[in-house]
Amino acid sequence: MQKIIDYLNANQSRFIEELSDYVRFPSVSAQPQHRKDLQACAEWLQVHCRKIGLETRLCPTDGNPIIIAKTPRNSSEKRPHYVIYGHYDVQPAEPFELWKSPPFTPRIEGRSLFGRGASDNKGQNLAHLKAVEAYLKTGTELPCDLTFVIEGEEEVGSKSLATFLKQHRTELQCDAVVVSDTGIPSPKHPALTYALRGIAAFELIMHGPSRDLHSGAFGGSVDNPAMALCQLLAKLRDKNGRITIPGFYDDVAPLSAYEKKQFARFPGTNRAYQKFLGVPKLFGERGFTPVEQRTSRPTVEINGLTSGYQGEGSKTIVPAWARAKLTMRLVPNQNPRKIISSARRYMFKLCPPTVRLEINSGHGAEPYLVSPTSTQAQAALRALRTAFGHEPVLIREGGSIPIVNDFKKYLYADTLLMGLALPDDNAHSPNEKFDLDCFAKGQLMSAHLWQELTR
Amino acid sequence: MQKIIDYLNANQSRFIEELSDYVRFPSVSAQPQHRKDLQACAEWLQVHCRKIGLETRLCPTDGNPIIIAKTPRNSSEKRPHYVIYGHYDVQPAEPFELWKSPPFTPRIEGRSLFGRGASDNKGQNLAHLKAVEAYLKTGTELPCDLTFVIEGEEEVGSKSLATFLKQHRTELQCDAVVVSDTGIPSPKHPALTYALRGIAAFELIMHGPSRDLHSGAFGGSVDNPAMALCQLLAKLRDKNGRITIPGFYDDVAPLSAYEKKQFARFPGTNRAYQKFLGVPKLFGERGFTPVEQRTSRPTVEINGLTSGYQGEGSKTIVPAWARAKLTMRLVPNQNPRKIISSARRYMFKLCPPTVRLEINSGHGAEPYLVSPTSTQAQAALRALRTAFGHEPVLIREGGSIPIVNDFKKYLYADTLLMGLALPDDNAHSPNEKFDLDCFAKGQLMSAHLWQELTR
Repeated sequence: MQKIIDYLNANQSRFIEELSDYVRFPSVSAQPQHRKDLQACAEWLQVHCRKIGLETRLCPTDGNPIIIAKTPRNSSEKRPHYVIYGHYDVQPAEPFELWKSPPFTPRIEGRSLFGRGASDNKGQNLAHLKAVEAYLKTGTELPCDLTFVIEGEEEVGSKSLATFLKQHRTELQCDAVVVSDTGIPSPKHPALTYALRGIAAFELIMHGPSRDLHSGAFGGSVDNPAMALCQLLAKLRDKNGRITIPGFYDDVAPLSAYEKKQFARFPGTNRAYQKFLGVPKLFGERGFTPVEQRTSRPTVEINGLTSGYQGEGSKTIVPAWARAKLTMRLVPNQNPRKIISSARRYMFKLCPPTVRLEINSGHGAEPYLVSPTSTQAQAALRALRTAFGHEPVLIREGGSIPIVNDFKKYLYADTLLMGLALPDDNAHSPNEKFDLDCFAKGQLMSAHLWQELTR
Repeated sequence: MQKIIDYLNANQSRFIEELSDYVRFPSVSAQPQHRKDLQACAEWLQVHCRKIGLETRLCPTDGNPIIIAKTPRNSSEKRPHYVIYGHYDVQPAEPFELWKSPPFTPRIEGRSLFGRGASDNKGQNLAHLKAVEAYLKTGTELPCDLTFVIEGEEEVGSKSLATFLKQHRTELQCDAVVVSDTGIPSPKHPALTYALRGIAAFELIMHGPSRDLHSGAFGGSVDNPAMALCQLLAKLRDKNGRITIPGFYDDVAPLSAYEKKQFARFPGTNRAYQKFLGVPKLFGERGFTPVEQRTSRPTVEINGLTSGYQGEGSKTIVPAWARAKLTMRLVPNQNPRKIISSARRYMFKLCPPTVRLEINSGHGAEPYLVSPTSTQAQAALRALRTAFGHEPVLIREGGSIPIVNDFKKYLYADTLLMGLALPDDNAHSPNEKFDLDCFAKGQLMSAHLWQELTR
């Protein structure tokens, strides 16, 4: 490994130049005017992979091309195979006026490289490319085959990825997928994200009278659908922060003592977290810490409410209808279909006969879990420890990363989420940056990972 | 009285012509382009009053002029004095395309005169003028002094009326105010409206985190202000339809056996009412009929809800805030200030420490009650019975008529609400009409009323 470490050290300033070149492409997938920039960025990436020594091709899709880049295969033996996923598209940079320097003109200040996409995800996928370059350029044999899959539609929902995975499932069959697109709490807390929450979305419409009624002429003799909706929603969560849907917690995988111990190592105080959120007091399911609540426990959230008059002053009506947008965050082993069905049944049961409830069920996504004590997870933790020089933490993400379910579904592979973004990297916000120490440590992490995974 | 009755009968067709002339003015107070039409209508009315034999003058205000028209005074004796209130301004006629004939081109079909303002309020105040004309033109002595006050801003909130009443309080000092601007259930159910509900308005804003939060990253560890608001609102009304604010019902004047008996005479079935509202089932405070609930019992209504995401699909946020517009309908003897203060106290008490509640109290209006067994009310009922040939019903209106409180405040006078509008008169809607039998009976009612009041 020393040769590799030396190579990485010796070439950091060139790598930073290359990251700047990569960030310079305004590869904004959400904006049609950047279609050509996405193509140009993909072509630059292809050329870059080829220079490193990878076999590479650009695969056209209905949207932006996906890059496949493979380490040279040793045909004499069957070796472990890992897919490294990343994306070259970025979020829109708007509002431009909040940027201290132009978003697509990379700027280095201290140990930060500023620019849209620096952290999400260009810097992170380039770190893996640089580790592989170090193997190939120093003539060090890789203990496994690697295939990069770098797409251009992650920020708009990875619309082409599922079809692509289906079409290339033989070529991409692998032992695991490695994704660096999540975060770490601090440079002293490298992290493996081993679980994600799933989701179930609903829209509730409570129908009352056939039109808005004068609340003076009719109020008191007819149910108010906004009140009926509030009374229904109010019953979904009890005072201990528990969801009241029958069977809701039946399949929830309990946290192991090992996991609870890991979470307790997570930096930051409740006081600081409360201040960060800007709330007078924290609230969550009794018996769990805030970290556990937001990562490992299921929720029901009201995302939006709409009814009647919303303007200035008052309008004296009994509104004809009231609507709520709801999403539930689900945790490993909850099944979205099962939860959606029991939630619907319960809500219809709660609805009084004086109004009519309409429920539209929206999208659902499976929760995700890789056992943190699995061989692969332990290998990832060792690579993190060695690269960062600190004991890594285990993280469950509260959100969903739908592509992880696609990898499971089409490649039958687990995903190791080994992100390099810091909490203040401003992903999706103005003044996005990438920490250049994280960039360097990410290269080391990747270099070590292939050794650890095949040990 | 026979001379008067004969005069009214003999002149009906001329009266209808005059009502047509009156309706022809597009005296829409809400629309600045009709300012001149309002002035012209007021001047026409002044000329008309003068022709009848009334002493009349146009009083300028900050808005549209108010007409004062007085019966000739007999200076030798002090007689009872009654003020007859009406308004010559009308609602906008839009949407024009829904009218079967132009709104300001009166059209007679059967026993209906169609046109904007025919029922609200031109036909009704003209009925009183015609009754007084009959007295004056037949040389029949009126048993009292009468003063017409006909304003031009009722449909935009009677902004100039309070100042006008204050300025003319000596001249307008009276034994009662008579207003024909309410409705009757059917021609067979002439009605005296003897009570009105008051109102208290609130805006509640529940503040949560300092900005919308990602419901995946943070949901579960922070209270959702939309949920907190729903849980608070849900507690305001119990399953029996009772408001839970402490002391809310303390001052409510109970319905007498006489009133309950009167209400039971109100035509229509619960089934028909439910169908009219378009609801699957009626709902209201247990122990009261729908008529009682909507007229004589206090309420809390949610008039509007706003929070988070309201567009298509879903947005996975914990919203930063949630807002509700509330109004309470208050009944005789509830005091809006007292209710507002106890409601605020209760809602702040219900608010959990995990969110911050802001309450903006809006307008309040006193409820109104004239005892239905008072001498004046009984006189009004006799006049109604004689004119319509049917036993009148006693009505409480569920809404508020703020001018009634102004008459009480500035003139210290009770108001007799003796409306002539039918439920299908389409007041404020396209194809407004006035029933010509109600017009004729209204004239008779007025003619009898002055006799009955002074008997």
